[in-house]
Amino acid sequence: MGILRLSHVEVRVPDIELATAYYVELVGLIEVERVDDEQGTRVFLKGWDEHQHHSLVLNQRATYGLDAVAFKVEHAADLDDLQAKIEAAGVSTSRHAAGTLAPGSGEIVRFTAPSGHVVDLEHGQFQVGNRMPKLNPPIGPEGLIGMAPPRIDHVFLMCEHINVTTDFFRDVLGFRMTEQILADDGYQLASFLERSHSTHDIAFLTGPDGGFHHVAFWVDDWNELRKSADLCAYHGVTVDAGPTRHGATRGCGLYFFDPAGNRNEMYTGGYWFDPDDEPTTWTENEIGRAIFYYQGKLNQAFMTVHS
Amino acid sequence: MGILRLSHVEVRVPDIELATAYYVELVGLIEVERVDDEQGTRVFLKGWDEHQHHSLVLNQRATYGLDAVAFKVEHAADLDDLQAKIEAAGVSTSRHAAGTLAPGSGEIVRFTAPSGHVVDLEHGQFQVGNRMPKLNPPIGPEGLIGMAPPRIDHVFLMCEHINVTTDFFRDVLGFRMTEQILADDGYQLASFLERSHSTHDIAFLTGPDGGFHHVAFWVDDWNELRKSADLCAYHGVTVDAGPTRHGATRGCGLYFFDPAGNRNEMYTGGYWFDPDDEPTTWTENEIGRAIFYYQGKLNQAFMTVHS
Amino acid sequence: MGILRLSHVEVRVPDIELATAYYVELVGLIEVERVDDEQGTRVFLKGWDEHQHHSLVLNQRATYGLDAVAFKVEHAADLDDLQAKIEAAGVSTSRHAAGTLAPGSGEIVRFTAPSGHVVDLEHGQFQVGNRMPKLNPPIGPEGLIGMAPPRIDHVFLMCEHINVTTDFFRDVLGFRMTEQILADDGYQLASFLERSHSTHDIAFLTGPDGGFHHVAFWVDDWNELRKSADLCAYHGVTVDAGPTRHGATRGCGLYFFDPAGNRNEMYTGGYWFDPDDEPTTWTENEIGRAIFYYQGKLNQAFMTVHS
Amino acid sequence: MGILRLSHVEVRVPDIELATAYYVELVGLIEVERVDDEQGTRVFLKGWDEHQHHSLVLNQRATYGLDAVAFKVEHAADLDDLQAKIEAAGVSTSRHAAGTLAPGSGEIVRFTAPSGHVVDLEHGQFQVGNRMPKLNPPIGPEGLIGMAPPRIDHVFLMCEHINVTTDFFRDVLGFRMTEQILADDGYQLASFLERSHSTHDIAFLTGPDGGFHHVAFWVDDWNELRKSADLCAYHGVTVDAGPTRHGATRGCGLYFFDPAGNRNEMYTGGYWFDPDDEPTTWTENEIGRAIFYYQGKLNQAFMTVHS
Repeated sequence: MGILRLSHVEVRVPDIELATAYYVELVGLIEVERVDDEQGTRVFLKGWDEHQHHSLVLNQRATYGLDAVAFKVEHAADLDDLQAKIEAAGVSTSRHAAGTLAPGSGEIVRFTAPSGHVVDLEHGQFQVGNRMPKLNPPIGPEGLIGMAPPRIDHVFLMCEHINVTTDFFRDVLGFRMTEQILADDGYQLASFLERSHSTHDIAFLTGPDGGFHHVAFWVDDWNELRKSADLCAYHGVTVDAGPTRHGATRGCGLYFFDPAGNRNEMYTGGYWFDPDDEPTTWTENEIGRAIFYYQGKLNQAFMTVHS
Repeated sequence: MGILRLSHVEVRVPDIELATAYYVELVGLIEVERVDDEQGTRVFLKGWDEHQHHSLVLNQRATYGLDAVAFKVEHAADLDDLQAKIEAAGVSTSRHAAGTLAPGSGEIVRFTAPSGHVVDLEHGQFQVGNRMPKLNPPIGPEGLIGMAPPRIDHVFLMCEHINVTTDFFRDVLGFRMTEQILADDGYQLASFLERSHSTHDIAFLTGPDGGFHHVAFWVDDWNELRKSADLCAYHGVTVDAGPTRHGATRGCGLYFFDPAGNRNEMYTGGYWFDPDDEPTTWTENEIGRAIFYYQGKLNQAFMTVHS
Repeated sequence: MGILRLSHVEVRVPDIELATAYYVELVGLIEVERVDDEQGTRVFLKGWDEHQHHSLVLNQRATYGLDAVAFKVEHAADLDDLQAKIEAAGVSTSRHAAGTLAPGSGEIVRFTAPSGHVVDLEHGQFQVGNRMPKLNPPIGPEGLIGMAPPRIDHVFLMCEHINVTTDFFRDVLGFRMTEQILADDGYQLASFLERSHSTHDIAFLTGPDGGFHHVAFWVDDWNELRKSADLCAYHGVTVDAGPTRHGATRGCGLYFFDPAGNRNEMYTGGYWFDPDDEPTTWTENEIGRAIFYYQGKLNQAFMTVHS
Repeated sequence: MGILRLSHVEVRVPDIELATAYYVELVGLIEVERVDDEQGTRVFLKGWDEHQHHSLVLNQRATYGLDAVAFKVEHAADLDDLQAKIEAAGVSTSRHAAGTLAPGSGEIVRFTAPSGHVVDLEHGQFQVGNRMPKLNPPIGPEGLIGMAPPRIDHVFLMCEHINVTTDFFRDVLGFRMTEQILADDGYQLASFLERSHSTHDIAFLTGPDGGFHHVAFWVDDWNELRKSADLCAYHGVTVDAGPTRHGATRGCGLYFFDPAGNRNEMYTGGYWFDPDDEPTTWTENEIGRAIFYYQGKLNQAFMTVHS
């Protein structure tokens, strides 16, 4: 009970047609719906094996960056429970009936986390299915194109006070910390938090409040990362880093940017995390290996290029 | 809250030294402890990335087969809650303090499921760690041998009345059914049940009550299945089936037998299952494809060789 | 100098449209040209990374099986040299100018080997390229479908007297034997022969003279074999065997049949063979492991289903 | 006939014990023999699946770099033929009987190429086998450690006048050029040359005469590159670049340095090259993509760090 997993993210893009083409043709997400409102067009996309209406929302805005990050809760009653806890922690919330914040949306509790990010807790997002029959299905739908990740995996954000945010996500929202990076003076530089027993549903890196580092989609193995990198190169999309492995999470990933400047990751690997497992700690002098396990040092862009 | 995942299985083996050598040298599990009691020797093993004391227990007995299957619960209070539900369903239970049923064991609620299997619900099994430091760790320990699965994945059992067992696991224990195979007359031939949002923590196939089909360990990808098959061939262990894919669960696996006759599987793949996802149904005429997706028919041994 | 590698095979198919659809849509070969002659339609196909005009020719005939197997020679002078050797061995030959036996064909020396197969030695087959520029190319063309093997790999034939055929291919045509299977009485049951330093460009298995077991196309790795098996299952093409490994050649493969009944293999792996390397020998009691390394025994179809 | 493939390289290392430990424990080569002469110790190593005595020779010297590169010829008569051609091209040669230049060596023609490198042509190097039986072998030997490449693949050297060197290797030694990189003024910046129908047995990059860029060993697939990178990280060996793909050759590779400073590559992929295939040309503005296909630009070290 409580939060089940990352549900979706909303990102800003100035050129909605270009961004949609990129996410559909290259990344290989499925476009489910688009709507126009007073601010512009919104496009709703999802991974091919997600049953829900959307895991990525593109909002047509003047710049790039993150508008909201949403988590799926298991039961409707979890919304009441979590809303009470958030309010008790001194954070104001708003409540939105199904279908009011977006087409296909479920009932939502919305608030701004101490990290400066708009966070949605949602129950009952409309299920559109994965284009496969529930009777004697094949192992995948025909006609997938691009990287074709089956689903969203995690989101990586930035904020000033990692420790405050970590406490809030752990104590109020029930997340568990799997890994952290500590400065020599003990100050938290990064923390990785999960609800799905993966290595992270959300992670925070030291930076400006409300900052957005990347959204990651799941691919099944290391070979898929090569295929993703091949596709980037083929389509002239610059690879930011990878295919490489992270020391933190042990996962493997490939970083690159959408046409608006939002960083994407294709990610695979990691490990199962039990609630009684102890978190792993990385020291500041090992931050290079924690992020880029093979290179042993950060590339120039990692700490500086974000929104 | 409630059951978190499959914790461990206890299997019988007549030749404890031979079986231990097989599970350590070929399968690549880690031997944690062995004890002698009046019935013989018990050996406690685990996957290299499991932190807990054991995920496989070998009990020295005159024959082979399953002695017990155990699930890990998240909170101590889950034991009380689940014990009450099981008793309310008319099934008698026993309660065992930590360390009494086995070295390293947590507190356990034990009962016999309608399927005829001894089931343990456990909280607080002793954590022994994964041989890696919690500070700046490498991505794996040195010196792994054999197939080296990081962890147990699922167990596949047999019973006469699949529907009764499915109802019990769903209504009393809180499992969710992800897939099922139905006979032409609507009778359930198999059901796949999960608590960990994977495709199955436990599955049941039509057969004798208390029957044991296989225990599966997780490997990271399709390449690991080839490596596992290479190791079987190298060590003269006959491959029962695979490397192949299952239509049901979409997972890929390799079947083979331990020296006592217990079937093992190395398994990878599958998909994430949300509580509000609809289960998949296979019809009897597609059972071949459900089990062996590539061959499209069962091999002779699948329904007949078990314990 | 001499024979360079396997060039192409000609197979018979009764339903030319069905077979072409299968080889284009499922196998993923490129259709280059089709011609009609008095006997019916001929379709010329090739792997996407082959530069030559064809590596598979489909001949519309009343039944299935092999019409011819062709090897590419390096120099035009090799045709003279080899023709003289073949004639000196008592085998009559015919000579065909470029473009006379087929569109795109080079100059050809044709003869019937002691195994009963029509064999072509060809120089100068027309080069059509691989659909990629010779200036700053990508790593592959866009829009590949199906299994999309880059090229043909080997052909596996049957004949009565393996030793006679092996001697002819070795002594007259300059092949080297990499592996063989011997009966208990020393009689050769199979031999593997190469010119390209791979494990085999052609192999012979005991059976009827002129028999055709399979033609194999190269794929890049074990993951491609899974993808190929997925595609077979998706399209309802029965997998004959695999994905598995062969003990002989150490290669990995997947067997299945075209709509006419000709066996195909997707193959990868193997090893580099130097002219001064010693061949490997398998004994009859290990033939199962030689062919199907994981299962350790032949499946029923392997020795009996062929043309 | 003629040159068959790259045979071996001799590199200089100051600390012979450290270098040997690195090549045996981390790279996973097999130490075959070591000898002491007046200049220091020489260690002879090979990939596990090479039958010959050595493919890498470590010469204990005061610095690092390349001492010699050797090619294997098919027939003893090829030595006479090639020696005559080299002399006719105005390059003096020396002839060395088997076993005189090194233990296990065959008969050798030695000369200095226009690129400033010592080149050996060798016939009849002693065969030591691959530690597997020639009767009913397994698919690999037991107990391999480290990256365990089966064999050497190619060598990448530097020289001032690429075009002169390319002409010499092509016209005198019979190599074929598969790819080249041209400056805007048409000057050759790099050329890739093969005898084994792979993408390159040897390549030259613009730089100082006699320069040594890297020696590459073959691994079987992209997964092996990840395993190799994992091993580098585990053992504290800095990864220079990769796992990545090259646009030129389409191969995938991982670069890193031995303790002396000699660059190594683990390499896989590429394509088959026929003698009548046209070479591929890269323009100077695409050199980044030619070398590092995903990143699209050279890393700082690529042109500047060599010996």
